[in-house]
Amino acid sequence: MLGVVVIGAGRIGRIHAENLNRHPLADIRYIVDVVDSAAADLAALCGAKVGTVDVALADKAVDVVVIASSTDTHAELIGRAARSGKAIFCEKPLDLDAATARQSVEIVEQFGITMCVGFNRRHDPSFDRLKQDIDEGIVGDVEVVSITSRDPSPPPLEYIEKSGGLFRDMMIHDFDMGRWLLGEEPVEVFACGGALADKNIGKAGDIDTAIAVLKTASGRLCQITNSRRCSYGYDQRIEVFGSNGMVRAGNARPTLVESADSRGFHKDPVLPFFLERYADAYRLQMDKFLRVVNGEAITIPQGPDGLRALQIADAAQLALETGRPVSID
Amino acid sequence: MLGVVVIGAGRIGRIHAENLNRHPLADIRYIVDVVDSAAADLAALCGAKVGTVDVALADKAVDVVVIASSTDTHAELIGRAARSGKAIFCEKPLDLDAATARQSVEIVEQFGITMCVGFNRRHDPSFDRLKQDIDEGIVGDVEVVSITSRDPSPPPLEYIEKSGGLFRDMMIHDFDMGRWLLGEEPVEVFACGGALADKNIGKAGDIDTAIAVLKTASGRLCQITNSRRCSYGYDQRIEVFGSNGMVRAGNARPTLVESADSRGFHKDPVLPFFLERYADAYRLQMDKFLRVVNGEAITIPQGPDGLRALQIADAAQLALETGRPVSID
Amino acid sequence: MLGVVVIGAGRIGRIHAENLNRHPLADIRYIVDVVDSAAADLAALCGAKVGTVDVALADKAVDVVVIASSTDTHAELIGRAARSGKAIFCEKPLDLDAATARQSVEIVEQFGITMCVGFNRRHDPSFDRLKQDIDEGIVGDVEVVSITSRDPSPPPLEYIEKSGGLFRDMMIHDFDMGRWLLGEEPVEVFACGGALADKNIGKAGDIDTAIAVLKTASGRLCQITNSRRCSYGYDQRIEVFGSNGMVRAGNARPTLVESADSRGFHKDPVLPFFLERYADAYRLQMDKFLRVVNGEAITIPQGPDGLRALQIADAAQLALETGRPVSID
Amino acid sequence: MLGVVVIGAGRIGRIHAENLNRHPLADIRYIVDVVDSAAADLAALCGAKVGTVDVALADKAVDVVVIASSTDTHAELIGRAARSGKAIFCEKPLDLDAATARQSVEIVEQFGITMCVGFNRRHDPSFDRLKQDIDEGIVGDVEVVSITSRDPSPPPLEYIEKSGGLFRDMMIHDFDMGRWLLGEEPVEVFACGGALADKNIGKAGDIDTAIAVLKTASGRLCQITNSRRCSYGYDQRIEVFGSNGMVRAGNARPTLVESADSRGFHKDPVLPFFLERYADAYRLQMDKFLRVVNGEAITIPQGPDGLRALQIADAAQLALETGRPVSID
Repeated sequence: MLGVVVIGAGRIGRIHAENLNRHPLADIRYIVDVVDSAAADLAALCGAKVGTVDVALADKAVDVVVIASSTDTHAELIGRAARSGKAIFCEKPLDLDAATARQSVEIVEQFGITMCVGFNRRHDPSFDRLKQDIDEGIVGDVEVVSITSRDPSPPPLEYIEKSGGLFRDMMIHDFDMGRWLLGEEPVEVFACGGALADKNIGKAGDIDTAIAVLKTASGRLCQITNSRRCSYGYDQRIEVFGSNGMVRAGNARPTLVESADSRGFHKDPVLPFFLERYADAYRLQMDKFLRVVNGEAITIPQGPDGLRALQIADAAQLALETGRPVSID
Repeated sequence: MLGVVVIGAGRIGRIHAENLNRHPLADIRYIVDVVDSAAADLAALCGAKVGTVDVALADKAVDVVVIASSTDTHAELIGRAARSGKAIFCEKPLDLDAATARQSVEIVEQFGITMCVGFNRRHDPSFDRLKQDIDEGIVGDVEVVSITSRDPSPPPLEYIEKSGGLFRDMMIHDFDMGRWLLGEEPVEVFACGGALADKNIGKAGDIDTAIAVLKTASGRLCQITNSRRCSYGYDQRIEVFGSNGMVRAGNARPTLVESADSRGFHKDPVLPFFLERYADAYRLQMDKFLRVVNGEAITIPQGPDGLRALQIADAAQLALETGRPVSID
Repeated sequence: MLGVVVIGAGRIGRIHAENLNRHPLADIRYIVDVVDSAAADLAALCGAKVGTVDVALADKAVDVVVIASSTDTHAELIGRAARSGKAIFCEKPLDLDAATARQSVEIVEQFGITMCVGFNRRHDPSFDRLKQDIDEGIVGDVEVVSITSRDPSPPPLEYIEKSGGLFRDMMIHDFDMGRWLLGEEPVEVFACGGALADKNIGKAGDIDTAIAVLKTASGRLCQITNSRRCSYGYDQRIEVFGSNGMVRAGNARPTLVESADSRGFHKDPVLPFFLERYADAYRLQMDKFLRVVNGEAITIPQGPDGLRALQIADAAQLALETGRPVSID
Repeated sequence: MLGVVVIGAGRIGRIHAENLNRHPLADIRYIVDVVDSAAADLAALCGAKVGTVDVALADKAVDVVVIASSTDTHAELIGRAARSGKAIFCEKPLDLDAATARQSVEIVEQFGITMCVGFNRRHDPSFDRLKQDIDEGIVGDVEVVSITSRDPSPPPLEYIEKSGGLFRDMMIHDFDMGRWLLGEEPVEVFACGGALADKNIGKAGDIDTAIAVLKTASGRLCQITNSRRCSYGYDQRIEVFGSNGMVRAGNARPTLVESADSRGFHKDPVLPFFLERYADAYRLQMDKFLRVVNGEAITIPQGPDGLRALQIADAAQLALETGRPVSID
């Protein structure tokens, strides 16, 4: 059994805690949150204690630190956890600042710590299957990856203002998927976009609609389209095209039902948002992380993946601002 | 070139005339109809003359008689055309009376005439492909054929009253498809149904909703469901299940368009009725018939097929009336 | 919290135990099985004791008896549990003999006990949605229910021999779905079939392929097709057709992935069998049952539903043997 | 009736001639081609004479000039036809040189001639329906148009070398579709690509795989992906995303058939190439053009549309060469 502290009892922290609570390898010992009542509620649900970072890191029975607190706390917590010799699961992004993120990655490497970065989509059974199909040569040489990723509705403006912008907050997931599925490192990014869904997002200095194009050294391409607003649910699709053919993963629906009437045929909107769409992915992500900590050799996204996705996001942001493609790194 | 007379200038006669008119092997010489203006209109469209049966059959330049007049005229016209040595295309059913239909088949055989019966669905590219797939062993041994066939709306009561009933008028197509796809002769039929869509059809002594089950000597099964009313278009689906798997043909739509909004995903109703759904089938049917007349060895539905489907329909009608399965023949 | 005893630690008992173990209302106190090691394993998994029926029924802390043992034990266990005043969940069928099943239903009514019968499919989110759509009038007046239900491969012959035959063992689920979705009681059944998939099943006196047609007093129809063998997975589809249109539930797949190559487009087989396909249904079934025991007013399938489905199965078996439609009851 | 000369008896000229030949408004009087036998064959098929440009333009009975000859002849033929007062249908592109194309557009305007440019896809029933849906507000404000367009296999290198490059030869269709569906003029284009499918195309100075991003003044975006090689057929898809939802048109298949076996579910490749996929579009294109010439007020793509698409293609080519987004015009 691995002793665990969960830092952050918000929406994401709660998902992780519930998955940890059901996992045979995990024993949640502490829940930490700046809001006492949030920590207490989640601790009660999990049969854990409310704790502090100090107490948890000092406890030798704690093997694993799950960081699901606000982004600005990630770097310090990673440093402290690494120095305490604990394995780390850190939500994305590592930090909004690439230099800081790099330091986190370095300290983790220095202390020889396992750190999994929360790119949950890599663990989605459908996207994982795409990757397997690619690796088995189903599509031949990968040429173009196309990613559609649309949130159902924009987050509150307060969130937008602290988010680091669409590329670092939202498209960072797609940059990671693009890297992973291209099978090569993107070396250049072009990006454009605007505030088409909500002008207030534009006034806040951000965009809500964007297209990015990534290019690898050998010429493979990835196109990504994002929107912060989508009327028909959480639109999450990926298509990988290559020399032999294509594999793609479509959207998920709540049921298998279709109806027909004089106006035509109808299906429900797709699953509403990430909690529903990626429920399996969150569960499998934590399972794989725990098994890696427990000694199994499984590939999971680690610190350098988190850093690289952030660097692509930075380059995309610069491309948006300058109107030109930007080299990555 | 084959000289052709088209007898019957109604809806079906018009389809045949238009397909003949575009066909390189056919030269329509006469259009015959009891309504002069209908004959004249269609003749003008086709660059043909308005004629009579007598004139057309006496004309040595006429090689082919296309019978698309009312059902009660079929038997006499078949007999006269056969005696005149003309090849015959006859719309289904051959007759509403099986004994009369049998005589027609016999006279055609006696004179060694080619007669194609208008089971247009056999020529539909999708259903034809099902048959090919079965013949190539894709499904292995056929075990169950499932046919869904629903008209968009009931015909006028006057039509119903002269139609011979749902089994002889509508399900006869499905009986033919069942025979064809089962690859064995059905030997028993069970049928039930009622007037669920329109009570007036029930008052007229007919039904508008029916299920039939066919069984072959070796135990293969076919289930057929019919309705005279379907809100979402002309519902025409076939599924063939066997030891290795399944092949099926779904419905056809007017375009490839799908839309999505906050209520979900939407597609158009399926094609409205047989003129649209089976336009290709009508064209290919006439093409194959003409090529057979021209000497090619192509399998087309002939007189005995028309007779057998009628016998199944008679048995189904008896099954409905007696509430028991009925042996065919 | 409701104290629970699970009787039967086989495949189904295990599913129920796992769902009970995760449910906040349930506390599994005993696992009972004729095989000691099976009981011990499952008890260990659930933190329960290995028990006997006597001990469990005598324990006042036991509120609920979950019967997942072999069919021939159901009637006696129902009787004893009812006399002990415990709520009962009983796997289908109640018994292979309708008279015995009727006695079980009567004794449960006599003691005023809640008894849920394990027609798990009613709780499947997609089929449940069909029912809701029907109840909300989406299809208008129901006219025809079409059910396709095919198992991936036949069970062992020893199972077949004790199963009561395809209608009582397999199609009984579909009879229940038909009754439920028709919204009216079937009054007559026609059935036919044979051993097309495996001749040994025929030698054992059973069939593996069947079609049944149900009819209600007002004339609504239901067609059901079953096979014990299906190459492409566990084929579970329902379509409900009515005066306004149609609702249907298709098959479920393991992922959302589609691939394309020079031979065409490809998707995986559908989910392999009931454990995968109805995992949610089993969970929701137990949840609803527990909530009913806990006082909520939720509709669940009860003893009379189990009895009626069995009576339809008996009538179908007689129809198969006599070759005629049979009145139910 | 409109007298027509068809100039060019190659693959495209033949399509136009066949559609004209069946059209009630058209009377093909001359077929012109540099290859005498090609002209003679097509003339025989259409009941027309082999002619020359001089004769045809001098013939007062000729109202319409259909230009389907090689691109380098378009400008001169447009000029001569315009001066002769004939209506013009010209295949795309008007010319490979934008300045020359502009002169053609100007001369057509100067003489008040109707000139339709052969952007056949605008007339495809599915894409036409997308446009209608957009115009009716189904998607709300258009935000992102996504176009996937992949040819089944690269043309011969000799064709590539004279084609003007992928953007002017192939993606020009998608630029036109993008303009049309965005509902606003693109003002900037970014493009990237390479020779991923066939290195010889790269040696010939062209690319076979490309992504382009268009932007309008108000910020609407269009992403286009092209490949010269696609294993599963002619991949032609469009998706239009907006404030209220989405409309999309998928690929077309030769039949409605799906099969299933132990490996899963299978459908045919999509229609092989443009002759099959756009057969209806070619027919409707000619129909609309003839009706416009005949006085009907129908919107068709005209000279300025041909010019603008070419200007976007030029800008895309420059973007590819410079690695930067390029302003259009």
